[in-house]
Amino acid sequence: MTSKPTRRHDPERRSRIIAATLDVIAEQGVDGTSHRRVAAAAGVPLGSMTYHFQGMDDLLFAAFEQFTLSVAALFEARLSAARTVEEARDAVVDLISGEVWASSRNMALTFELYAYANRKPAVRQIMSNWMAGSRKALGRHFDLATARALDMAIEGITIHNAVEADAIPRAEVERIVARLSERPAR
Amino acid sequence: MTSKPTRRHDPERRSRIIAATLDVIAEQGVDGTSHRRVAAAAGVPLGSMTYHFQGMDDLLFAAFEQFTLSVAALFEARLSAARTVEEARDAVVDLISGEVWASSRNMALTFELYAYANRKPAVRQIMSNWMAGSRKALGRHFDLATARALDMAIEGITIHNAVEADAIPRAEVERIVARLSERPAR
Repeated sequence: MTSKPTRRHDPERRSRIIAATLDVIAEQGVDGTSHRRVAAAAGVPLGSMTYHFQGMDDLLFAAFEQFTLSVAALFEARLSAARTVEEARDAVVDLISGEVWASSRNMALTFELYAYANRKPAVRQIMSNWMAGSRKALGRHFDLATARALDMAIEGITIHNAVEADAIPRAEVERIVARLSERPAR
Repeated sequence: MTSKPTRRHDPERRSRIIAATLDVIAEQGVDGTSHRRVAAAAGVPLGSMTYHFQGMDDLLFAAFEQFTLSVAALFEARLSAARTVEEARDAVVDLISGEVWASSRNMALTFELYAYANRKPAVRQIMSNWMAGSRKALGRHFDLATARALDMAIEGITIHNAVEADAIPRAEVERIVARLSERPAR
C-alpha cells in the first residue's frame, strides 16, 4: 500500500489514533472497528494507520492497553491519596458508586475487552496486568486477600449497576466494602 | 428465500439450532456467528433457520435466553437443595470454585453476552432476568442485600478466575462468602 506524503512523525498522531480507536470500540464494538472508521474518527489519512500499527490486532491491543493503564492510574491516584484505611474504603466506594470510572463508556470498553480477551489469549495479559495494578493500588491499605476481595467487589458491583436499572444504593456498597475489609483476613 | 422441503415440524429442531448457536458463539464469538455456521453445526438445512428464527438478532436472543435460563436453573437446583444457611454458603462456594458453572465455555458465553447486551438494549432484559433469578435462588437463604452481595461476588470472582492463571483458593472464597453473609445486613 502506498500512502500520500503525511506528517508521519507527528508525535501525537499515534496517541490520537489510539484515543479514536477506543471511541469507535465503545460505539461499535470490537467487530465494528475498522481501520477506515478509526482513521475517520482520528482525522488521519488511512495510510497512516498502517504506518503506526501492524494490523487490527496490534491496534486493538494498543487501545485496550491504553484503556486499562488509564483506569489503573485513576485507581492508583485515588488510593494513594487516601491517608487512612477509612479513607481508602471511601475511595473504593467512590470507584464503585461514583461516576469516576463506572461510566457507560468505560463499561462498554470493559465488556468488549472481556469478550475480545477471551477469544485472543495474548490479550489476557492486559487484563491480568490490570487486575495486578488494581490489587497493588488496594495493597497500599489492605492485605492481599482483602485487596483481591475488594477488587472483585468493584468488578461485580459495577457490572450489576451497568445492567440493572437501579444502581445498588451507596449505603449498601459501603456495607459490602466494610464487611470485606473490616478485619485482617489471615 | 425458498427452502427445500424439510422436516419443519421436527419439535427438536428449534432447540437443536439454539444449542448449536451457543456452541458457535462460544467458539467464534457473536460476530463470528452466521446462519450458515449454525445450520452446519446443528445439521439442519440453511432454509430451516429462517423458518424458526426471524433473523440473527432473534436467534441470538433465543440462544442467550436459553443459556441464562439453564444457568439460573442450575443455581436454583443447588440452592434449593441446601437445607441450612451453612449448606447454602457451601453451594455458593461450589458455584464459584467448582466446575459447576464456571467452565471456560460458560465464561466465554457470559463475556459475549455482556458485550452484546451492552450494544443491544433489548438484550439487557435477559441479563436483568438472570440476575433476578440468581437473587431469588439466593433469597431462599439470605436477605435481599446479602443475596445481592453474594451474587456480585459470584460474578466478580468467576471473572477473576477466568482471567488469572491461578484461581482464587477455595479457602479464600469461603472467607469472602462468610464475610458477606455472616450477619443480617439490616
